[in-house]
Amino acid sequence: MTSAAFDVLGIGNAIVDVIARADDAFLGKHTLTKGSMMLIDEQRADALYAAMGPGIEVSGGSCGNTMAGVASFGGKGAYIGKVRNDQLGGVFGHDLKAIGVSFATAAATTGPATARCLISVTPDAQRTMSTYLGACTGLGPDDIDTALVGSAQVTYVEGYLWDAPEAKKAVLKAFDAAHAAGRKVSITLSDSFCVGRYRAEFRALIRDKVDILFGNESEITSLYEVDTFEKALEMTRKEARIAALTRSEKGSVVIKGSETHAVPAARVAKVVDTTGAGDLYAAGFLYGFTHGKPLAECARLGGIAAAEIISHVGARPEKALKDLM
Amino acid sequence: MTSAAFDVLGIGNAIVDVIARADDAFLGKHTLTKGSMMLIDEQRADALYAAMGPGIEVSGGSCGNTMAGVASFGGKGAYIGKVRNDQLGGVFGHDLKAIGVSFATAAATTGPATARCLISVTPDAQRTMSTYLGACTGLGPDDIDTALVGSAQVTYVEGYLWDAPEAKKAVLKAFDAAHAAGRKVSITLSDSFCVGRYRAEFRALIRDKVDILFGNESEITSLYEVDTFEKALEMTRKEARIAALTRSEKGSVVIKGSETHAVPAARVAKVVDTTGAGDLYAAGFLYGFTHGKPLAECARLGGIAAAEIISHVGARPEKALKDLM
Repeated sequence: MTSAAFDVLGIGNAIVDVIARADDAFLGKHTLTKGSMMLIDEQRADALYAAMGPGIEVSGGSCGNTMAGVASFGGKGAYIGKVRNDQLGGVFGHDLKAIGVSFATAAATTGPATARCLISVTPDAQRTMSTYLGACTGLGPDDIDTALVGSAQVTYVEGYLWDAPEAKKAVLKAFDAAHAAGRKVSITLSDSFCVGRYRAEFRALIRDKVDILFGNESEITSLYEVDTFEKALEMTRKEARIAALTRSEKGSVVIKGSETHAVPAARVAKVVDTTGAGDLYAAGFLYGFTHGKPLAECARLGGIAAAEIISHVGARPEKALKDLM
Repeated sequence: MTSAAFDVLGIGNAIVDVIARADDAFLGKHTLTKGSMMLIDEQRADALYAAMGPGIEVSGGSCGNTMAGVASFGGKGAYIGKVRNDQLGGVFGHDLKAIGVSFATAAATTGPATARCLISVTPDAQRTMSTYLGACTGLGPDDIDTALVGSAQVTYVEGYLWDAPEAKKAVLKAFDAAHAAGRKVSITLSDSFCVGRYRAEFRALIRDKVDILFGNESEITSLYEVDTFEKALEMTRKEARIAALTRSEKGSVVIKGSETHAVPAARVAKVVDTTGAGDLYAAGFLYGFTHGKPLAECARLGGIAAAEIISHVGARPEKALKDLM
């Protein structure tokens, strides 16, 4: 195995967030389930946007946030994801490249617009997300540069990609290319509803291909359809190679075979917005992993990154994470 | 004079802000003068954006911010400004309409893109702005709905409009329509560089047409080419009907003939970002003016709105200003 040009290659849904304040009545009127991510079509997206308050636009996407975190630690990152050649696509690409993440996926020149995630922030600091996947549905196997995959120590993907059938094929192609090059592959379960949609496929993938699994308590208990974290942990131990499971204020647990590393959460003065905690945990963990750190230290770095992200609004780091290590 | 459908009609450059952090070296490298607003062409805008760090996109424009403030006080506002029918134009229109400001100017279907203001925020909390006017240059007399102008108590415009020759003609048409309907007209000097570009025209306009003049200390001293605020005040008293002049932490001074009302600044716990202070002062003042308040009370409302805006990042209110009155 040659030395790697990149620490982490991320593959994800390339999404621009539109964030606006809302009250509970707004969620009720538009039948939105607080705290969840729901997929919506273009017509629904247009109607919901028209009803939302004034917003701010900021690059997002779970995996995009993770790659921003890897770069903020000083890691070398690359990203594959599909935007349209429109203004928001330009914004998404700019914001990744501006922090030093390599991003060369060709933008679609026809078809739906760049994906938007309409985010309603309620006074209790929760975020309710409605995602119009738009151009993301155009991501396919042809977008996977196998040489690029082979040049990254870890290829990391989001479970959300299963929502676009061609994107799933792209992931499988990337996983095979990574393994052929002697590299590792990693996936996040994304959210418990996503797990509900693709449970059997995710379990097979974890058994057969995944080297590093990320998930939180609700995702992993949903995956194995058990009622406690402890039961899920033992199921995971049987099926996954390495798993890093997050538990909010209880910190995280990393397992690898018979090893178990329980790492407490990093201290946070005030939790402002929990969005992106999982994305940034993965960033810290993968930065540590690709820099030869022991698993407990990887988990500690994940916790540091998650603590930074939940201390402010927005899912991309405001402080350089390398200064917080 | 019939009762007015709108309190304030604003006419301005319709701009989406792109805000990113930068250090002093970045300003030096790109020959940007800290704290100023500079006009740039599309090529320069593209190059500067490519060099900037990750950003957030948020609706802006001086007059757009003012109208958001008027609406936040509970005032009835309308806006005339030109965007392109592109994604950022959609964002600009959405954000105004979402707070209840009427905005019906036809978007351009050809020509340059919606205007962007590239804002570099340095660690000292100052903002340096580079504006690509884009579609704003297409605003012209045909965009002035004289019936709409006649239905607003005050038509308020930004001096920045003088940077687009057809927009200036639009303003003059609107001013005449307002006066023909027995309404008032108002202008902000926008910034001292803008005053430097159009000093003679602004002075003539103030003498001949303007009912309410807004400016800050550096703008008004530039306008009359004097070296102290006191001298500028006496020049203003001779030439303007009503003038509301802001002095940052020293508050504001309103003059009308021999009347002088000096009003202290509202208290601010911590100044985070001074952008938009003048825009929001005008919002509070005009809300008060169109609700029959005495001039000193108008100035006090202006101060409250300015204090809210400088206590957070961004130039549109985060709290409902009507709750702060």
